[in-house]
Order: sequence, then C-alpha cells, then structure tokens
Amino acid sequence: MSNVPWLLYTYAWMPYPRRISIYLREKNIPESLIRIIDCWDPATEGMLREENLPAKPAGSLPILAIPNHGGAEGHSDKGYTYIRQSVAIIKYIDEHCDQGILGFPKSEYSMAGESAIERARITEICALADDCLTGWNSVRTFGSAAGALEDPAASRQMMKWVKRSLQTIEQWWNDRDMQILRIGGGGQVNLGDILLFQFLQFTKEDYGVDMTKGTKTVVKDAYDREVLDDYPKLAEFYEAFGSRDSAMLDGDRGDVAPESVSKVMKTWWEGSLAESGALPV
Amino acid sequence: MSNVPWLLYTYAWMPYPRRISIYLREKNIPESLIRIIDCWDPATEGMLREENLPAKPAGSLPILAIPNHGGAEGHSDKGYTYIRQSVAIIKYIDEHCDQGILGFPKSEYSMAGESAIERARITEICALADDCLTGWNSVRTFGSAAGALEDPAASRQMMKWVKRSLQTIEQWWNDRDMQILRIGGGGQVNLGDILLFQFLQFTKEDYGVDMTKGTKTVVKDAYDREVLDDYPKLAEFYEAFGSRDSAMLDGDRGDVAPESVSKVMKTWWEGSLAESGALPV
Repeated sequence: MSNVPWLLYTYAWMPYPRRISIYLREKNIPESLIRIIDCWDPATEGMLREENLPAKPAGSLPILAIPNHGGAEGHSDKGYTYIRQSVAIIKYIDEHCDQGILGFPKSEYSMAGESAIERARITEICALADDCLTGWNSVRTFGSAAGALEDPAASRQMMKWVKRSLQTIEQWWNDRDMQILRIGGGGQVNLGDILLFQFLQFTKEDYGVDMTKGTKTVVKDAYDREVLDDYPKLAEFYEAFGSRDSAMLDGDRGDVAPESVSKVMKTWWEGSLAESGALPV
Repeated sequence: MSNVPWLLYTYAWMPYPRRISIYLREKNIPESLIRIIDCWDPATEGMLREENLPAKPAGSLPILAIPNHGGAEGHSDKGYTYIRQSVAIIKYIDEHCDQGILGFPKSEYSMAGESAIERARITEICALADDCLTGWNSVRTFGSAAGALEDPAASRQMMKWVKRSLQTIEQWWNDRDMQILRIGGGGQVNLGDILLFQFLQFTKEDYGVDMTKGTKTVVKDAYDREVLDDYPKLAEFYEAFGSRDSAMLDGDRGDVAPESVSKVMKTWWEGSLAESGALPV
C-alpha cells in the first residue's frame, strides 16, 4: 500500500468533476487515498492556488495524478502519471476497488457490471448520459447567458437531441424498480446511474431546468417523429437516487456554484426552452 | 458453441454502425458468428425489408440481437436479447473474443487494454472520440444541408468544441509512433483508435471535411484561449490506420452513402466552415 495519496484536481461544482465526487462518496473512498484538490476559488471565480501541493497540471479538469512509486518504500520520487477524463478516472479507481488493492476499500458489488450483459447494459446508459451532457453544452451555448451565442432556435433544436437520449432511457427503464436505489433500499447503483444522476442534478440545480419534467404531450422529436414528452421513470429514478448521501450537494466541499455564476447559468434567453417542455424549475 | 448466429441490425454507412463494422473486420469475425443485416435500402433511401430474417427491432441502429438459447442444443427458441448502443455492442463482442468463447476468434491482444492504466488511456480516447461524434451532430445540424436549421454561426461555434477534443488528442499523441498502425506494421490498434478513425473517416468521406487539416495558425478556442490549429499527429494516424483492410469503404457492403444523400451532406451553408480551418476537401 502506498502512503502517498493520489491527487484529484477538480472544480467540484462543475459537471465532469462532479461525476467523480458522487462516485468517491458512494464508495466511501477517504482523502487519505485520494486527496481532492479543488482548484476553484470562489472569491476570484478562478484558479485557487494551494501553496503546499503540486500545481495543477496542464489540461482540463478533472485530472487524477497517481504517484509513480520509485521503490519498495512505496514513496513517490518520480513524479506522477495523469488520467485526464472523468470516465477513465472513475473506471481506473473502480478497478482498484473491485480488486481491493493499494488500500482501496474492496467493492461489495461491481458498479461496472458482474456479467458481460450487465456490463453492456451499464455501458448503454453511460453512453447516453455522456450524449446528454455533451448535448447540454450545445443547449446552454445557444440558450443561456452562460453560453457564447444567443440563439434560442439553435438551443431548442439541440434540446431535441438531449431529450431523445432521455426518451430512450425512459423506455429502457420502463419496469425498473427505482425504490431500491433509495438510501437504505438495498439496491445496487452502477456507473450509468451515477453519470445520469449527475446530468439530471446539474441541469436542475445549476441551470434551473428539471429534465425529468416533460409536457406530457406528444411532440416532434429530432427526426420529426411523434414521441410522448413524459419521463415518469426518470423522475422516480432522480428522486430515489437523490436520497443517497452521495447525491447531496455540500457547499463546504465546493459542490455548489458561486451565486454570481449560478445566476448566469439560470438566465435563459426568451424562447430557448419554449417548445421543450423543460421549463425552468 | 451456438449454431445460431447473432444478428447485427445496421445502416452500414452511418457513423455509429460503422464503428462496429471496422471492429468486426479488424477482428475477422465471420458472418457465421454475427450476421449483418443492413437495413438501409439504397433504392428507397429507407428501410430495407428482408423477408427471411426477423424484423428490425424497435429503436435506433445499431442493434445487436443475441439468441436466447433454450436448451442444450444451443438452439434459439426464446427470442433475442438486444444491445442497442455501439460501444456497448463492441465491448460485449470484444469480451467474447478476449475469452475466445462461443466460437469467437481468441484475441491476439486486448483492444480494451491489458492493464488498468492502458484501459484508462483507451477510455480517454473513446470518450473524446464520442464527444467529437456527438459534437459533429451539432456542427452538421446548423452548418450543412443535412441538418435541420441553417445557422452558420451556430455551426462554427460548435466546431470549436469538436476541435477542442481533437486538439487534446493531438497533444496526448505527440510522441506516438503511428507507422506501426499501418497494415503489416505490427502495431496494436485499440478501441479508441477505431472510434477516432471512424469519426475522421466519416467527416472526410461523407461530409467532405478533413478534420486532420487545420489552418496551421493560432486561433481562439471554445474558451477564447489561443491554440494552434494544426493536427500533424492526427493526420499521420489517419493515413496509417487508413491503410488497414478494416478501414476500406466497401460499396458492396453498404459502406458508402447513396449519391443523393452524400450530395446533401457535402452541401455546407456559406460561412459554416469559414473560421474553422476545416475546409471541405
């Protein structure tokens, strides 16, 4: 076991880093194993400099820095190896938990899936949750004051693609029992659940848009096909997962966006959300 | 071993199905194991109906249908289990190859990575290639006649995000030897390579935009930061991987879009690609 913790450089309230926070809390991984370095300074709304820690590596956050162990002492003297993408970071840590190595708490069950078909099911959701979050970047770019270009029609168009992914999940989860996901419910949450919950929480809490609330009417999708804009299973999922400790937004740990940034994210241009049914909460 | 093949429902020339085609050819998986059902009818530019095969399941393509084996004969009498997302399908098949089970040709090496850090490196690229392909949907939605809304400024804005992912990979691959990826080069291609190659080939061949060609000038990225718009390593990667048999576009197997569709995809609105450096080839 190493006595030098891994370092996780993060902006805690931002979407990709937040996925990792939920994962780490779900797994009860302590800071003695992975030291979290929040690089967001609420005062300046920019980079926080912590003098006694290695400076943030170049590149987008999150970044996981793993000490290169130089010898039998397990002591780092050869710098760090970096992993620079949220899913890659989670899976890397998760493999260590599944094996219970390097001091990581041994998994009670696999969050990536025990069998090939279970892994496929989880990969399906991870991919759609990724599509949602990438798609949201387009929605907010054109639709909210946090974006670069005011263009409500473009925002509405891209919202159709995000909804398409959510409609697919809604169908797949038609008969899934969500109540077991509640805290103490005895159910197993997986990596797909974590990614999707993060998306739903981010859009609701940061952008003020509850994506689990449709218009409950038939609308035209991205392919001009008629679909029902209604997400009861996603709403049930969100409510159940939201009861877990890992889901709580902890201001003291940087999980909440600063007020000034939050205000910008919640400012939607006239007409941006008009036809989407995803009205501000 | 089963004597009933799996069924892969696909539109061969479309981007997500194409990932699987490259994978299957790279692995030399025969149709006796996975029967490919191309659902695209070039004549009607719509759904092809093959009378002697089970109808296309509901949902977006690609879809992998795995016979549910009902007994010791390995014969299907209980329908199919479906996997409905390209990466989930590839990984599911890949696990069978890595283990050499159910008749799948045993992998000579792992395309998903042999060690935890290798798997993380491949996951990083898979995620960025996914971001590129999802981002491209926005670019073409606003920038090309294949999209729903003519809005060149919106297309240019989204192109910045696609380029951001490509710039990241370009940096990561700074010292990667691409020549070993050439046919006969002895190198190992992985799942990230396949996903990224598919994106670069799709955008070049179908939309007529060579994303490996930058302006070689300093431009503003999506965060208004100055970056060099130049992709020599991606160009080298594309050329090397493109020499492989798996990369060839085979019209007889449906790999090439019909002329009429191709023409629409290659029609870009005035100003759409103007500031991107990714000019039509």
